[in-house]
Amino acid sequence: MQSTMMHMPLMINQILERANQIFGNREIVSRRPDKSLHRTTYGALYRRSRQLAAALVEAGIRPGDRVATLMWNHAFHLEAYFGIPAAGAVLHTLNLRLAPDDIAYIINDAQDRILLVDDILVPLMEKFKPMVKLERIIVVPTSGARVPEGYDNYEQFIERDASAYRYPEFDENAACGMCYTSGTTGRPKGVVYSHRSTVLHALGVALPDCLDLSVTDAVLAVTPMFHANSWGVPYAAAMVGANQVYPAQHMGAADLLDLMESEQVTLAMGVPTIWLTIQQALEAESMRWKLKKGIRMMVGGSAAPPAMIAAFEKHDLSIKHGWGMTELSPVGTLSWLKPEHATLPAEEQYGIRALQGIPLPLVELRIMGDDGPMSWDGKSVGELQARGPWVTGGYYNSPTDPDKFTPDGWLRTGDVASINPAGYMRISDRTKDLIKSGGEWISSVDIENAIMGHPAVAEAAVIAVKHPKWDERPLAAVVLKPGSEASIEELRKHLEAHFAKWQIPDDWAFIDAIPRTSTGKFLKTRLRDDFKSWVSRTPG
Amino acid sequence: MQSTMMHMPLMINQILERANQIFGNREIVSRRPDKSLHRTTYGALYRRSRQLAAALVEAGIRPGDRVATLMWNHAFHLEAYFGIPAAGAVLHTLNLRLAPDDIAYIINDAQDRILLVDDILVPLMEKFKPMVKLERIIVVPTSGARVPEGYDNYEQFIERDASAYRYPEFDENAACGMCYTSGTTGRPKGVVYSHRSTVLHALGVALPDCLDLSVTDAVLAVTPMFHANSWGVPYAAAMVGANQVYPAQHMGAADLLDLMESEQVTLAMGVPTIWLTIQQALEAESMRWKLKKGIRMMVGGSAAPPAMIAAFEKHDLSIKHGWGMTELSPVGTLSWLKPEHATLPAEEQYGIRALQGIPLPLVELRIMGDDGPMSWDGKSVGELQARGPWVTGGYYNSPTDPDKFTPDGWLRTGDVASINPAGYMRISDRTKDLIKSGGEWISSVDIENAIMGHPAVAEAAVIAVKHPKWDERPLAAVVLKPGSEASIEELRKHLEAHFAKWQIPDDWAFIDAIPRTSTGKFLKTRLRDDFKSWVSRTPG
Repeated sequence: MQSTMMHMPLMINQILERANQIFGNREIVSRRPDKSLHRTTYGALYRRSRQLAAALVEAGIRPGDRVATLMWNHAFHLEAYFGIPAAGAVLHTLNLRLAPDDIAYIINDAQDRILLVDDILVPLMEKFKPMVKLERIIVVPTSGARVPEGYDNYEQFIERDASAYRYPEFDENAACGMCYTSGTTGRPKGVVYSHRSTVLHALGVALPDCLDLSVTDAVLAVTPMFHANSWGVPYAAAMVGANQVYPAQHMGAADLLDLMESEQVTLAMGVPTIWLTIQQALEAESMRWKLKKGIRMMVGGSAAPPAMIAAFEKHDLSIKHGWGMTELSPVGTLSWLKPEHATLPAEEQYGIRALQGIPLPLVELRIMGDDGPMSWDGKSVGELQARGPWVTGGYYNSPTDPDKFTPDGWLRTGDVASINPAGYMRISDRTKDLIKSGGEWISSVDIENAIMGHPAVAEAAVIAVKHPKWDERPLAAVVLKPGSEASIEELRKHLEAHFAKWQIPDDWAFIDAIPRTSTGKFLKTRLRDDFKSWVSRTPG
Repeated sequence: MQSTMMHMPLMINQILERANQIFGNREIVSRRPDKSLHRTTYGALYRRSRQLAAALVEAGIRPGDRVATLMWNHAFHLEAYFGIPAAGAVLHTLNLRLAPDDIAYIINDAQDRILLVDDILVPLMEKFKPMVKLERIIVVPTSGARVPEGYDNYEQFIERDASAYRYPEFDENAACGMCYTSGTTGRPKGVVYSHRSTVLHALGVALPDCLDLSVTDAVLAVTPMFHANSWGVPYAAAMVGANQVYPAQHMGAADLLDLMESEQVTLAMGVPTIWLTIQQALEAESMRWKLKKGIRMMVGGSAAPPAMIAAFEKHDLSIKHGWGMTELSPVGTLSWLKPEHATLPAEEQYGIRALQGIPLPLVELRIMGDDGPMSWDGKSVGELQARGPWVTGGYYNSPTDPDKFTPDGWLRTGDVASINPAGYMRISDRTKDLIKSGGEWISSVDIENAIMGHPAVAEAAVIAVKHPKWDERPLAAVVLKPGSEASIEELRKHLEAHFAKWQIPDDWAFIDAIPRTSTGKFLKTRLRDDFKSWVSRTPG
């Protein structure tokens, strides 16, 4: 029996229409290259996105064609987020931190026809330009400087009256965007989002227990728009009419805190390394900024240690932890407290909030062991697998890879995790980040978090190094806070409260900075390279 | 270009699975017939709903078959909400306030195969039983009394181990529920909901600016579960793990306030007439109940006057206004303030909150005039039309009716409304509730709301009565609060601040109660009947 409900597809265009009709005067604020502020509204975003769509259609772009962006986080990029799908085309965000030949590979693999590029990124673009086939390169004059010879000017490209523009009609499962994963093995692979998955993801992340996104919010997205849709915030915030605040390339702590103050930001999104620098700035000059009370700070990309959560609470800033992947659009879980946690001591609450969290509605998780799905007992550890309407079931142009997808249709995340009886997921490690010492597994993430709980430590990463008897042993690479001191003995003592003796590293290296991926995560492959000839000092 | 996203259908079963896996210990509290409290959890709900599903399948129920309920609001009804769709069948909620022959007509029209009925409603059921074809009648022993001879006992019917039960597989557009509209003309017609529309509606209403539904909530649904899914709360609350609180048939003010106190309710849903009695109880004995601070009270079904919003603010209870219809699953709009309203005087805020509100994401509204869609200027008044994935596009078993649907696929709501530039919709009237006096329209709703703002007035309804010269004139039927007095002159004077002289009624009737529909709305057809021979006193 079929229902009598209308067959209305879920479309990004509906979000754009709503933002204009109901929230036309709400603001989008972006930094320009010279750090001055550019202000616009959803009403103007609507007009200009539709102008871009009409211009793309006139330029010969057809439904399903890929249009790439090489852009920082700002309102012009947001126009592309709406304008490219409004043309029926596919927004392909390029990761500007990749090497030029990787970017070229990705453009060619996706068969991008047109590229939109920030004027200040033209020098980067020119490094890969000889390697790619693009029909047209359109330069967005974000700096006010003249657009270099030989390129289209974005403002001229979109100039027109598009008030009568009509969206092409297509199915909700049509592609609207794509993003390549920066995999550590093999060539990058494309994940292709649909209008349906994007709208559902926006609804899911906006829920009260998730990002709690409301028209009263001002959202600062430090997470790059070139990576996994900046956690879906551009779409979710537009859907509810929240102000959007974008830092462009200015991601220093003082610049971000200035923006948070001037725009009265209520919700900010970023990786832990960004919040670590913010924490240090607030500790150095806590009186400098008058921030809105109770700012929520969304942390993902890698784990936020409980110590960071506790440190921010002192400044009335609330860390919210999450887990996601490009393959999940990207948000899979967020950590929130249940009513039964309300009476727990603060330290225990921080511990729960530091877990990766609860799967969003419509996202299903399981822990796969050798003998099938494992119990949600908080102890059984296995590979984390995911399924849901905003989870990818494959990669663009790639045969189905049994390393990435199970025969019954779940995504193999590559993370090793457990789930407790209350539904909180906890990642122990990436499969390749576990350390096998004397036949027992040691979690590098747990030890890192504990070391980062020491007041003298800014950052720490733990990797496996060789040991003649125990096979592998943990090595802790530690970055101390400027002006702080801590001895190996003191750090080992600090760990004794949490770990068995055999789990505590005997090998320590004090370094200047942890190497990072282009998206700000610890780049452990680099670290492993740096220490590949290190032999553990643990007695045999 | 197709996306790489998984093809995961939106299913009610996912909500049930999630409620069990993640919120298994959260509570559902219901009144029994003797007013004692019945407590259960989502874990038990999950088990019993799946037992019901397995029992229905064993009884021969096949996907798409209709299973009816004749039940009050309680946990057993919630089991039917999940268990019937979990069998692939269609939950058909019967309105127990209808006349027995209407109920019989509806059962036969829907071709219900099985009926679940509360034991205390067996006498009602027996009135229509001879008129219907039902294969099986299953009695739910809510009172503890023995199930009458000749009927199945629900507890015996579902008793089994259903832990291995597997949901049938079907499309997300398959029917999961149906509800007949209590239309004022013609026979009732069935609206058929789908799994997809139900899941999307749950996501939409749960959003922060909508019901703001969270795991920390305890939700009291006074809105009947036999009518339009009790505003979708049973599904939305289960999705986020909120406690659910059900009053069964005990809807007196003191009983409801007792429940709100004992269960620390944070969100309550009902029609204005329910909240009017609560307001009177709180005014009489405000110290009697220790309620949770800041309870949100969702009001829909008919308009809540600004005076009611203001009166509740004094008790730290926040009225949230909405508009919906059975045809919209049912929520179409809710009223919330935008940041620019934060600095307005309280009276102006109440005025905005008393509007029908802003369309939910994915719901589209338009105001249709004689020459096409009208401007959102807050003044242009025309027929309200709606479209969206949880809006019905037809009625069960009925040919498409041009009085209800436009040729381009919008639902004609039968409401007369305007929308202001900020997106707030305001219903002036039902088409048939407008009063045409001397060629000019008078809105009965506006005058009713203003009269109800007078401190001596409990309720008021305005209808058209005949006038030899002006064609129609408004008559105000007024119910005074117990012990209060107000003269016609005083009430007319009260209206002068808001209305032109010609709009103010010259005809007044003080009555004991406004007649109501089975769902608690003012039944103006009855009132018009009562006053059909009245001739207006307005001078010609």
